Amino acid sequence: MKKDSTNLRVRLPALIFALEVLIVVLYAFFVTYDDHSNALLQNNMTNPKENAVYQDYPFFADIQVMIFIGFGCLLSFFRHYGFGGMVFNFLTATFSIQWAILVQGFFHFYYDGKIHLGVINLINAEFACAVVLISFGAVLGKTSPVQLLIMALLEVPIFGVAEWIVVMYLKINDAGGSILIHLFACYFGLGVTYMLYRPDLNNGHPKEITSYNSDMLSVLGTLFLWVFWPSFNCALTPSGDDQHRAILHTFIGLSASTLTAFALSAMLSKNGKYNMADVQNVTLAGGVTVGASVDMMISPVAAYVLGMLGGMACMLGYKYLSPFLARRLHVQDQCGIHNLHGLTGLISSLAAICAILLASEETYGPSLYQTFSFRAPIVGDPRLEELQKLIPGLEGGLGRTAQEQALYQVAALGSTIAIAIVGGVLTGFVLKLPYLASPNDVSCFDDEPYFNIPPDQTYIVENEKDISLQQIQQPAFS
Amino acid sequence: MKKDSTNLRVRLPALIFALEVLIVVLYAFFVTYDDHSNALLQNNMTNPKENAVYQDYPFFADIQVMIFIGFGCLLSFFRHYGFGGMVFNFLTATFSIQWAILVQGFFHFYYDGKIHLGVINLINAEFACAVVLISFGAVLGKTSPVQLLIMALLEVPIFGVAEWIVVMYLKINDAGGSILIHLFACYFGLGVTYMLYRPDLNNGHPKEITSYNSDMLSVLGTLFLWVFWPSFNCALTPSGDDQHRAILHTFIGLSASTLTAFALSAMLSKNGKYNMADVQNVTLAGGVTVGASVDMMISPVAAYVLGMLGGMACMLGYKYLSPFLARRLHVQDQCGIHNLHGLTGLISSLAAICAILLASEETYGPSLYQTFSFRAPIVGDPRLEELQKLIPGLEGGLGRTAQEQALYQVAALGSTIAIAIVGGVLTGFVLKLPYLASPNDVSCFDDEPYFNIPPDQTYIVENEKDISLQQIQQPAFS
Amino acid sequence: MKKDSTNLRVRLPALIFALEVLIVVLYAFFVTYDDHSNALLQNNMTNPKENAVYQDYPFFADIQVMIFIGFGCLLSFFRHYGFGGMVFNFLTATFSIQWAILVQGFFHFYYDGKIHLGVINLINAEFACAVVLISFGAVLGKTSPVQLLIMALLEVPIFGVAEWIVVMYLKINDAGGSILIHLFACYFGLGVTYMLYRPDLNNGHPKEITSYNSDMLSVLGTLFLWVFWPSFNCALTPSGDDQHRAILHTFIGLSASTLTAFALSAMLSKNGKYNMADVQNVTLAGGVTVGASVDMMISPVAAYVLGMLGGMACMLGYKYLSPFLARRLHVQDQCGIHNLHGLTGLISSLAAICAILLASEETYGPSLYQTFSFRAPIVGDPRLEELQKLIPGLEGGLGRTAQEQALYQVAALGSTIAIAIVGGVLTGFVLKLPYLASPNDVSCFDDEPYFNIPPDQTYIVENEKDISLQQIQQPAFS
Repeated sequence: MKKDSTNLRVRLPALIFALEVLIVVLYAFFVTYDDHSNALLQNNMTNPKENAVYQDYPFFADIQVMIFIGFGCLLSFFRHYGFGGMVFNFLTATFSIQWAILVQGFFHFYYDGKIHLGVINLINAEFACAVVLISFGAVLGKTSPVQLLIMALLEVPIFGVAEWIVVMYLKINDAGGSILIHLFACYFGLGVTYMLYRPDLNNGHPKEITSYNSDMLSVLGTLFLWVFWPSFNCALTPSGDDQHRAILHTFIGLSASTLTAFALSAMLSKNGKYNMADVQNVTLAGGVTVGASVDMMISPVAAYVLGMLGGMACMLGYKYLSPFLARRLHVQDQCGIHNLHGLTGLISSLAAICAILLASEETYGPSLYQTFSFRAPIVGDPRLEELQKLIPGLEGGLGRTAQEQALYQVAALGSTIAIAIVGGVLTGFVLKLPYLASPNDVSCFDDEPYFNIPPDQTYIVENEKDISLQQIQQPAFS
Repeated sequence: MKKDSTNLRVRLPALIFALEVLIVVLYAFFVTYDDHSNALLQNNMTNPKENAVYQDYPFFADIQVMIFIGFGCLLSFFRHYGFGGMVFNFLTATFSIQWAILVQGFFHFYYDGKIHLGVINLINAEFACAVVLISFGAVLGKTSPVQLLIMALLEVPIFGVAEWIVVMYLKINDAGGSILIHLFACYFGLGVTYMLYRPDLNNGHPKEITSYNSDMLSVLGTLFLWVFWPSFNCALTPSGDDQHRAILHTFIGLSASTLTAFALSAMLSKNGKYNMADVQNVTLAGGVTVGASVDMMISPVAAYVLGMLGGMACMLGYKYLSPFLARRLHVQDQCGIHNLHGLTGLISSLAAICAILLASEETYGPSLYQTFSFRAPIVGDPRLEELQKLIPGLEGGLGRTAQEQALYQVAALGSTIAIAIVGGVLTGFVLKLPYLASPNDVSCFDDEPYFNIPPDQTYIVENEKDISLQQIQQPAFS
Repeated sequence: MKKDSTNLRVRLPALIFALEVLIVVLYAFFVTYDDHSNALLQNNMTNPKENAVYQDYPFFADIQVMIFIGFGCLLSFFRHYGFGGMVFNFLTATFSIQWAILVQGFFHFYYDGKIHLGVINLINAEFACAVVLISFGAVLGKTSPVQLLIMALLEVPIFGVAEWIVVMYLKINDAGGSILIHLFACYFGLGVTYMLYRPDLNNGHPKEITSYNSDMLSVLGTLFLWVFWPSFNCALTPSGDDQHRAILHTFIGLSASTLTAFALSAMLSKNGKYNMADVQNVTLAGGVTVGASVDMMISPVAAYVLGMLGGMACMLGYKYLSPFLARRLHVQDQCGIHNLHGLTGLISSLAAICAILLASEETYGPSLYQTFSFRAPIVGDPRLEELQKLIPGLEGGLGRTAQEQALYQVAALGSTIAIAIVGGVLTGFVLKLPYLASPNDVSCFDDEPYFNIPPDQTYIVENEKDISLQQIQQPAFS
C-alpha cells in the first residue's frame, strides 16, 4: 500500500471522470448560448461585425497564453519537477476554467433558468483560474494532481462567494484584480500550505534546485506573463480611455519593477550576482501593484513609483519575510506568492484608496462617474440626466462619495482576505485526507512518482551523486 | 556514394532553387493585389478602417504561431531529432504556404487572368500547410528534407483538387476542416508511410526516444496549438455569432479532451504514471472532433461530449490501434496522426451529419440559412426575399434539404479519403526514388545526417553507451 | 580589485537607481496622458470604441513578443551565456523603452509643456528599443550589464537625433525602418564593437559554442521574430491598403529568404549539412530587405525577389565578409548584425529608391499621394482640393517629384549611417572607461561572472574538459 501511495491509476481517473460527469450534467441542464452566440437572436437589428466576440476574444487569447504558457513555463523552474510544473498547471487550469464557467455562471450569468455562455464568461473564468494557479504556487512540488484538482474544486466556489460579495454588495474599484484575484489567491494559498506544513522541508530538500534549462524556461514564462499582463489588467475595464490607461499603467509599472528587481537582486545577493529566481518573480511585481487603480487617472509617474515599490517589497519579502514565515509561522510558501501577490496586493489596495480619495471632476471631468461608476448619481437624480448629456450611455450609480467608496474598498480588502484564509485552511484540511496520492517528503519536487521519465534524466540523476551535497542543497530561493 | 547518400550539398539547393524559380515566374506572371490591398482601387467610397486586413490578420497571426511554433515544438519530441523536427517543420511550412498561395490561387482567387492576393489567401494557404504538416507527422524522422519538399510539392495540388471538388461541387459544412483538413492530411500521410514501410523499425529503434528537455519543448508546442486552436476553427467561419460559437465549442472541446486524456493516460499506463506522449497529443483531440460542426447550434454540452469522445478514441488508438496498424497493415504512423486526426475526424464528420439532420428554424431562426448557406432558397425564390428582410445580406443558396446536405457530407467524406489515400500512395512511390537523400534505417530519428551538431550532444551520445539498451529501446509512444 | 572587476553589487544598483530617479523626475514633471488616454477629454463627441488603443494595442503586443521573447531567445544561442542573452536582453529592452518614451517624447509628442502619452508612444519606443537590441548583437557576450545600460542611455538619444532629422527634415519613405532602424542599429553597433576590439578573440574562444538546447531555443526566438515581423513592418504604416500590402510583402519576403537560406546553408557548409546559425539568422533577412518599400505597390514578385536577395547577401556576408571585418578592420561583429541588418538594409534602401522612381498615378491612382505623402501638393494648391475629393482626408504634402524624393532617401541613408558610426564610436569610447564591470577575455561568453549558476551547469563544465579542444574551439558562426 505505502509503496503505491502516489499511484494515480485508480484515484485520478475516478476523480476526473466523476468531475466530467458533473460538468456534463450541469452543462446539459443549465448552459445555453448568450445573446451574442445564439443564432436565434440574430436578426436585421444585429450587426455581425459588432458581435461582442470581437471585443473579447483578443483579450481572452492573450490571457490564455498567460495561463497555459506563461504560468506553465514559470512553474517549471525545478530541475526534477519540470513535467510536474508545466503539466499539472495544464491539468489544473483546464479543470478550473470549466468549473468556473459553471460556478460563476450561477452567480453572474444566470437568468431564465440558464447560464448564458459567451467569450466574456471565459474571460471571467480565466480570472478564477488565475486565482487557483497563484495558490498552486504555494504548494508547488508538494501536492499530487489529485490534491490539485480537489483544491481547484473547492477554491473556485469559495472564490465565487468572495467575488459575489465584493461585486454584488460591496461594489469596489479593482480593475486589475489586485484585491479580488491576487490577495484572495495569496491568502488562500497560504492557508492551504499552512495546513500541509512539512517540518522536515524547512532544512532544504536535495531536489529543491533548478537546472540551467529549467531556469531558462522559467524566465521564458515570466516574459510571456510580462508581455501580456496589460491585457489581463484591462480585459474587464470599460472600453475607451479607461482601457487605454490600464495598458499604459501596467506597462510602466512592470518596467519599473523590472529595473528595480535587477538593481536589488545584484545588491542583496551574497556575491553581487543575479539570482534567477529574482529575475523570474520580482520583475512581475509592478503588474500587481498598479492593479487596483490601473484604470484611474493616477498619472504615469504614479504607475512608475507603484512599480518600484512593488519591486522593493517583493524583493525584500523573498529575502527576509519568506524564511521567517516558513520557520516561525509554519507557512512554507514554495514560490513566494506572499511576496509577488500578497505584499504587492496590499500596496495596490492602499494606492487605490488614495487614488479614490483624490479623484475629482477637475481631473476626470464627467468621466469620473464612468471610472467610478458607483459614485454616479442614482437613477432619478436630475444630476444624472445632466451627466448623461455629457457622457451618453452613463448608467445610474449609487451616489457614493469618495470617502464612502474608500470605506467599501477597505471592507472588500478585509472580507476578501478573511474568506481566503478560512477557505484556504479548510481546503488544506481536506487535502490532508488519505488516498489523495500525496507525495512523501522524499518524493517532493520530483516528477518520478507521477511521470514516466525519459532515460536521459534518469541517467543524469544516477551520475550526479558525486556532486557535493552542500552544493545541491541550496534552496531555489535564497 | 553510399556514404554520402544523405549529403544535402547538391540535391537540396538544386531542388530549392528550381522551386524558387518556379515561384518567381508564377508570381511575376500571375499574382497581383486583391481589392483590399491594391492602392489603385481605393477611393472616396472605401474606408481604410474597414479594409479586410483588420478582420483577417489577427486570425492569420494566431495560425502562424500554431504552424511555425506550435507544430515546430510539438514535432521536436525526439531526443536526437529536435533540430530535424523544428527546422524541417520551418522549411516545409514555408514552402507549403508559398506553393499553396499559387495552387489555391488558380483554383479560388483567379479572375481577369490573375491570382488576386490578400491576407485571406494566406489564411487559406495556412490551412493547406497544416495538411502537409499533419502528414509530415506520419513520416517524422524517416525522411530527408528533399523528400519533405517533394511531398509538399505533390500534396498541395492534390489537396487543392480535393478542396476544389468539395468546396465547388459538393459544398459542405466543415468550418473547422475536420473532413477537408484533418481526414485528408491523415489518410494522405498514412498512404505515404505505407509506401515508405521500413520493416526493421517495427522492433523499435534505439533513437526512438525522448529526452527531458525535448518532452518539455513538445508540451510547449501542444500548449501553443491548444491556446490558438479556436482561431484556427473560426478563421473561415461567417463573422458574428457563428464565429462566436466556433470559439466557444473549440475551447470546450479541447478542455474535455484534455481532462479525458489525463484520466486515461494514468489509467492505461503500466504503472499508473503519465506518459508525456499522451499529454502532448491526446489533449488536442477535442479540437478536431468539434471541427465539422463547430459553428452550428450543437449546444455547449455537445461540444463537451465530443471532446470527451475525441480524447477516448485518440487514447485508445495510441494504445491499441497504432501497434496493430504498424505490424499488420505495414502503416508506421510515427506521431500517431491516425489517432489525433483520423479517428477524431471521423467522429467529427458523423457529429456534423447528426447536427445537420437536427438543425431547424426552431433552433436557428432565419440564421439557419446563413450557417447552412446551401439550404438557403435559390435566387428567384420569393422565400429568399422574405428571409433577406430578416437577415440582410443573406445570399441565395441551393435550396437543399437537411437530408440532401447530409448526403453531400457523406459524399465529401468518401471522396476526400479516397483522393487522400490514392494521392498519398502515389506520393510515397515518388519519395522512394533514389537520390532523395533518404536516411537509412540506422540514421532515422537522428539529426546527425543533416545538421552540424553542437559538441555537447556528441559528448552525451558518446558517454551514454553504458545505459542499458533495454532502457533506451523503449519506443516513444508505448 | 581585479578579482571583483565584474562584481555588480555596487555599480549596477547605483546606476539603475540613478536612472530610475531620472525617469521618475522626468515623468513627474513632463509626462501626462494624450487625447485618447485622458478621461478629461472624453465627452459626448468621443466614441470609446474608436479610441486609438484598439488600433495600436494589437501591434504593440506583437512587437512586445518580438522584443522580449523573440530577441531574448535568439540571443541565447551561446551554451554558457544563455542567462546573459535572455536576461540582459530583458533588462536592456525594459530600460530602453522607458528611456525612449522620454527622449522621443521631447522630440515628437511634446506640446503645452508636456509629453503626451498613449500606446502609440510605446510603439515608437519599441522601435528605438529594437535599435538598441540589434546593436547589442554586435557585442553579445563581451559586455557587462552596466555597459549595456550605458550603451542604451547613449544610443537612444543619438537615435532620437537621427530620427528627428530624418522624420522632421528629410521626410522619407521607410515604413519598415530599414534605413532608420536597421542601418542605424547596425552601424552604431559596429562602431561600438570597433572600439571594444579584443584582438585575442579573433582566434576563437573556447566558450564561443552553442549547445543542443541553446540552439533549439535560439531557433524558437527566430520563429517568434519571423511570425510577428509583419506587425513590426506595418505598425506605423497608414491604415488600410498600405498596411495590407506591408503584411503581404513582409510575409513573402521572409518566406523567400527562408527558402534561400536553407538552400545556401547546405550548399556552402563544409559537409553539406545545415549550420543552425544560418537557420537562426539568414532566414530573417527578407524582413529587412522589403522594409523600406514595404507599403508601396512593388508587386508580390518584387517582394519575393527582395527576400531572395536578402537571403543571399546575408549568407555570403556570414561566410566571407564577417571574418574579413574581424581580422582586417578590427570589427568583431558577434551576431553578424552587418549581414542581417546592414547589407540587407542597403539592399532595401536601393529597392525603395527604385520603387519611388517608378511610382506613378497609373499604378497607385490618387492613393499615390497617400503612400508618398510628401509628393502630395502643398496646402493651397488647387490640385490638392481635387485629390481630396477622390481621397477624403488626404493631407497637404510638400509637392516633391519622384526624383526629389529619391534624393532625400539618399540623403537620409547617408546621414543615418554617418550619425550611427560617429555615435557608435563615441559610445564605444565611453564603454571602455574603467569600473563598468567589463569581463576580461577569458570571462567572455560566460554567465559565471554575473549569475549564480545552477549546479548542473557547473557539473557539466567540470566533466567536459576531456572533450577535444579542437572540437570546442569551433566558432559559433563558421
